[in-house]
Amino acid sequence: MATHVGAQTIKIDGPVSIISTASVVGPKEGQGPLMRYYDMILEDILHGCDSWEKAESKIVETAMELVIQKAKLAPKDIDIIIAGDLLDQSTGSTFGVMNLERPFWGVFSACSNMGQAMSVGAVAIESGAVQKVAVGASSHFCSAEKQFRTPLELGNQRTPTSTWTVTGSGCAVLSKSEDGPFITYITTGKIVDMGIKDPANMGAAMSPAAADTLTAHFKDTGRDPSYYDMIITGDLGYVGRELTVKLMEESGYALTNTYTDCGIKIFDKEKQDTHAGGSGCACSAVTFAGYLYSSLKEKNINKILFVPTGALLSPMSSQQGQSIPGIAHAVAIENSRG
Amino acid sequence: MATHVGAQTIKIDGPVSIISTASVVGPKEGQGPLMRYYDMILEDILHGCDSWEKAESKIVETAMELVIQKAKLAPKDIDIIIAGDLLDQSTGSTFGVMNLERPFWGVFSACSNMGQAMSVGAVAIESGAVQKVAVGASSHFCSAEKQFRTPLELGNQRTPTSTWTVTGSGCAVLSKSEDGPFITYITTGKIVDMGIKDPANMGAAMSPAAADTLTAHFKDTGRDPSYYDMIITGDLGYVGRELTVKLMEESGYALTNTYTDCGIKIFDKEKQDTHAGGSGCACSAVTFAGYLYSSLKEKNINKILFVPTGALLSPMSSQQGQSIPGIAHAVAIENSRG
Repeated sequence: MATHVGAQTIKIDGPVSIISTASVVGPKEGQGPLMRYYDMILEDILHGCDSWEKAESKIVETAMELVIQKAKLAPKDIDIIIAGDLLDQSTGSTFGVMNLERPFWGVFSACSNMGQAMSVGAVAIESGAVQKVAVGASSHFCSAEKQFRTPLELGNQRTPTSTWTVTGSGCAVLSKSEDGPFITYITTGKIVDMGIKDPANMGAAMSPAAADTLTAHFKDTGRDPSYYDMIITGDLGYVGRELTVKLMEESGYALTNTYTDCGIKIFDKEKQDTHAGGSGCACSAVTFAGYLYSSLKEKNINKILFVPTGALLSPMSSQQGQSIPGIAHAVAIENSRG
Repeated sequence: MATHVGAQTIKIDGPVSIISTASVVGPKEGQGPLMRYYDMILEDILHGCDSWEKAESKIVETAMELVIQKAKLAPKDIDIIIAGDLLDQSTGSTFGVMNLERPFWGVFSACSNMGQAMSVGAVAIESGAVQKVAVGASSHFCSAEKQFRTPLELGNQRTPTSTWTVTGSGCAVLSKSEDGPFITYITTGKIVDMGIKDPANMGAAMSPAAADTLTAHFKDTGRDPSYYDMIITGDLGYVGRELTVKLMEESGYALTNTYTDCGIKIFDKEKQDTHAGGSGCACSAVTFAGYLYSSLKEKNINKILFVPTGALLSPMSSQQGQSIPGIAHAVAIENSRG
C-alpha cells in the first residue's frame, strides 16, 4: 500500500523496484560526459526515418523494446506502458509505443514527464492493479526547436540563458521485486507560476516549481537535503540551478554541492556549447536511465532525490502573452527501503 | 486493493465512488437534447476571455471549482487533480487548474482523456495514496478547429463524416465512499491502428480501438454486453457507432440498442446540423458529468460501461502522411458493488 504523507507526498511501502532501464540518445549526447552510461548512441539523428518527429517515435520504440528486453521480459509481460513527450498531442510517445500493443496511459507534465510516469507507475503497482510497468519519456532537439522556437535552417543565434533540448528516450521497468533500487517516496508537484514570460529562459520559469516541490518533499517527509547522496533536478541547467539554490535558501533549506541538475551533467560546458545546459523530457529520462541508475546499481550513490522539471507552455500560450508556469515531480530512489 | 483481471482489465475492489460531477458547456451544447443535465451553459463561447484557448482554460477552471464545491469540499481537500485536453502541450488543463494550487497529473490519450483520468484516479485511491481526486477533461470547438483543421473564418464546408468538437469541460470527484455510483472495473486500451488516414472521419479511425477495448473488457470480466443497462462510447458519432457494432459482431459480441455514443446523444441530429455527431474530450466528459451521472443517481440506469475514445493524431503526423491510430479506455460504473 501507499500512504499519503503531509501535503503532497506519497510513501511507497513497496517494494516497487526499478528492475531495468534503457537509454537511447542522439550523436551530440553521445559525445557528452555521460557517454559510457548510454545503451545506444545514434550516429544518425533521424534514426533512419524521413522526419524528426518520426525519428523521435522510433527512438521511443527502440528504447522501450530495449528496456523490456533488459528486464528479461517480452512486451506481453508488461501490464501497462506509461509515457510522455513534448510534441503536439504526444505523438512521440503514441507512435513510439503503438507496435508493442500494450495498454497505454499517456502523461503530460512537459519535461517532468519521467517523474510523473514513474509516480503513476509506482502508485499503480502499489494498488495491486499491475505487476510490471514500463515508463518512459522522450524529446528530440530538431522536432522541439521546430515546434517551439524557430526553423533550424534559420541558424538563429541562441541567447546565453537558452538550453539545448536533449535527443533521446529514457525508459525503465518497474516491478514488485526485492532487488533495489526502490522508489520510496513521490512528491507530486503543483503548477507554480511566477510570471516568467521568456521562452528562452526555461531555467528561470521552472526553478520556482522545483523549489516548491523540494520544499514540500522535505516538509512532508521530515527529511533534510543532507539525507540524500544526490538531489538532481531535471533540466534547469546552470541558470535554473542557481535560482533554485537561492529559492531554497529562502525556504530555509541549504542545498549543497550534492545538488545538481541533469541539464548540467549531460553536456560538457566548455566543449559542447549548449549555453545554459540540457533540457527536454529526455534530459532527465536518459540521465536517470544511464548515469543515475548505474550509480545506484554500483552503489556509488544509495539515496537520490530525482526531480524532473517541466515548463508548461505552448507556442500558442506564449504568443498570446501568457506566462510560463512550471511543475516538478520528485521521486526518491534508494537502494535500501530503510 | 485493485486486482488485475485477464489481459487488460483491473477490478476496483473499492469502494471508489464518484461523489460529485460538474459540467460547463458552450451555447450550442446548451441547446442540445441534454441541456437540462448541465450545471452551466455559457452564453459566450469566449467565457469572457480574449482567445479561444484562454476560454478553454477558464471553462476548465469553472468546472473544477464547481465540482469541488458540489462535493462540499475546498480545493485544499483535493489530494490530486488529474486532467487532460486536446490543445498543444495540454494548456487547456494546465492553465485551467493552476489557480487551484493542487498536485497535478496531466493525462493524454486524446479524446479518451476522461476515461484515462478516471482510471488513474481510481487506481490511485485503491493504492491508499490519495483520498479525494478531481478528474476532468475539456475541449473547445473553436480552439480545436483552429488547431486541427482550418481557420474558422474560412467557413469551410464540412464533410458528412465529420463531427463537431464539443465546447465544455466535464469533471468529477472520486472518493472512498459507500454511496454510489462506484467505479468497479477499468479496461485500459491499447493503441489500435487500422491505417485510417482521413482526419475528417474520426469515427472510422477510433471504432477499431473501441471494439478492441470492448472485446477485452467482456473477455476479461466474463460479462456479456447484456450485463450493462447502457454501453456508451465517447465520440464515435453515427459513423463510428455503426462500424463498432459491425466489428463487435465479428468478435462474437452482439451490441443492441443499449449501445450508444456520447457523440450521438449530445446534439440533435435533425436540428443541430453536426453531421456525424459530437466529438472532442468534452463530448464524453460533459455527457458523463451531466446526463449519465444524473441517470445513475436517479437509478434510471444502474450499470453503465463508459468508453471514452481517442484519435491519436496531430496536424503534423497527418501532414507527414501517418495514419490515425485510436485508443479507448473503458470504465464500468455501477450503483451496486455486486
